[in-house]
Amino acid sequence: MKDVQKLLNDIHPLKEDYLKQAKQRLDSLTKPPGSLGKLEEIAQRYAAIREDLNPSIDKKVIFTFAGDHGVVEEGVSAYPGEVTIQMVLNMLSGGAAINVLAGHVGAEVVVVDIGVAHDFEPAEGLVINKIGYGTKNFFKGPAMTYDEALQSIKVGIALADEYAGKGADIVGTGEMGIGNTTPSSAILSVFTGLPALEVTGRGTGIDNGALRKKAEVIESGIKLNRPDPEDPVDVLAKVGGFEIGGIAGLIIGCAFHRIPVVVDGFISTAGALIAVALNPAINEYLFCSHLSSEAGHRQMLERLGQKPILDLDMRLGEGTGAAIAISIIEAATKIMTKMATFESAGVDKALK
Amino acid sequence: MKDVQKLLNDIHPLKEDYLKQAKQRLDSLTKPPGSLGKLEEIAQRYAAIREDLNPSIDKKVIFTFAGDHGVVEEGVSAYPGEVTIQMVLNMLSGGAAINVLAGHVGAEVVVVDIGVAHDFEPAEGLVINKIGYGTKNFFKGPAMTYDEALQSIKVGIALADEYAGKGADIVGTGEMGIGNTTPSSAILSVFTGLPALEVTGRGTGIDNGALRKKAEVIESGIKLNRPDPEDPVDVLAKVGGFEIGGIAGLIIGCAFHRIPVVVDGFISTAGALIAVALNPAINEYLFCSHLSSEAGHRQMLERLGQKPILDLDMRLGEGTGAAIAISIIEAATKIMTKMATFESAGVDKALK
Repeated sequence: MKDVQKLLNDIHPLKEDYLKQAKQRLDSLTKPPGSLGKLEEIAQRYAAIREDLNPSIDKKVIFTFAGDHGVVEEGVSAYPGEVTIQMVLNMLSGGAAINVLAGHVGAEVVVVDIGVAHDFEPAEGLVINKIGYGTKNFFKGPAMTYDEALQSIKVGIALADEYAGKGADIVGTGEMGIGNTTPSSAILSVFTGLPALEVTGRGTGIDNGALRKKAEVIESGIKLNRPDPEDPVDVLAKVGGFEIGGIAGLIIGCAFHRIPVVVDGFISTAGALIAVALNPAINEYLFCSHLSSEAGHRQMLERLGQKPILDLDMRLGEGTGAAIAISIIEAATKIMTKMATFESAGVDKALK
Repeated sequence: MKDVQKLLNDIHPLKEDYLKQAKQRLDSLTKPPGSLGKLEEIAQRYAAIREDLNPSIDKKVIFTFAGDHGVVEEGVSAYPGEVTIQMVLNMLSGGAAINVLAGHVGAEVVVVDIGVAHDFEPAEGLVINKIGYGTKNFFKGPAMTYDEALQSIKVGIALADEYAGKGADIVGTGEMGIGNTTPSSAILSVFTGLPALEVTGRGTGIDNGALRKKAEVIESGIKLNRPDPEDPVDVLAKVGGFEIGGIAGLIIGCAFHRIPVVVDGFISTAGALIAVALNPAINEYLFCSHLSSEAGHRQMLERLGQKPILDLDMRLGEGTGAAIAISIIEAATKIMTKMATFESAGVDKALK
């Protein structure tokens, strides 16, 4: 934990000076002040994160962490675990939703096998950095050891380090893992104290009976493992998932390198909850891409105090919401850097 | 009116068959059915409008209609009327928000002088098709004649004809006209019977005193001119604006040519209200891009029964909301046409 803690200690709140200068720049542009609403807030914060008043978003990378979940044996998902493997292969051949949407916004997709119950052949666009072949069933004991939880976080941090070196201007989070709404709901329940039934949703599409069962599994798992909400790594270990740890680490590493992170939906935000619990300043480096239609996501965003950029009733994950939001964030920065000012355009500003 | 009516009679509801086939296609893709939420609804409707299950959005055009408003002399705007001229010039030199956002999404901007109180030099990207040098002050009499209202609609229809011929795959609406939230609120008030004060907002940023004054001007103008809510062209003539008529005509023409129209914010939606009042089937050809923070826009969308794609607290107009939404609609169509199916990817669909 010592090395992770050192990084965490080096993540600081955004500098007021950059926020202020970005606002001044935005108010000098040929539009009524504030009339581009959230686009202006996004541009302002992006500039402050990068500490650059003339940023451009060229290199965009979406990391889709894949992992399996022992808890699937309790019948919490509408799909069998093997679908994680099939969907990873689908992503590597470019046929998944995230490939299409990332392509649309000019982002690269990096699939990270952080814990799928399968040995993939090496492939372009695939990073293999396994903590295990799926987590253990947290209905029967901890999902992973404390050390494995730390290792999963370090996988994310290492990717942030590598891609900071490659010049990433913005990073999106994503995931694929049959069963992974279950640990995400569990993490939310532990941090907020909300009963499992209130923060458990249908995932890929379970029926009412399975939904009740899923909530019971979560509640029992929490009672059995007693995760300590004051120790986010313990929460991750007891009821989390490898890909959730990877996302938390990616977020920590990106915040350290001052790379804005676009958080996808429900599972990704569970990763963000872990990261922000480790250092609340990290929250300022995050853009929450969309409000998922998965029950509980609203409560996650409320806990972070974040407003989602989009609300499109999406609930697919993979990084699909992050992809679309990245394009909007890019649009916002272009507003700041490419529009004419009142002065340069000779537009009347008497009543500005 | 006869020629316009002929066109209107040739606009029909979308064909169930295309909607159904598009849904089948979407449900065959490697994702839980419906998990991409509004993106799937958008793709489905886009395909049905085009009557093409494998559409691609290549040519995107945003029309920004510019006009002036006699009612500005009543002090309803925070900016003087000359700003319309300055902003048109700013758009032609590429410095306005719409240029930046249209550029970001790969759309062309066509500025249409349909009634600015100024003679522009011919310029690239500018269509000059003036109905007048600004409308008359509707606080004192009708904004325009019935014939001028029809002419403004025909300007929009002619542009739709021209760009249908040029192969436009999607069209966005936009406008620039100091004072034009005032006629837009008036149109909404006439159609809904809602009191002016309830549907009048701050436009580019007026204070409380000016806001009360603006609502009074609208209420008096309606009382004086007595527009007939059963005759949308009469409403446009009595309390509307040239650019609102142009937008209404563009929408009618695009629906006729089965080109999806992305409606920008408050003023553009006033144009949509006119068009849809002339033929309710037109509504199915519209995508409402965003919820403007201008008071009254929510009521407009409710009247149309349309849900906005975005909610970013924008209130700039020009077509800025339409630009961003165009990119999301394009993303949605790519989902439908570029993703792998369960069959092609060999992904388990047992529990689909």
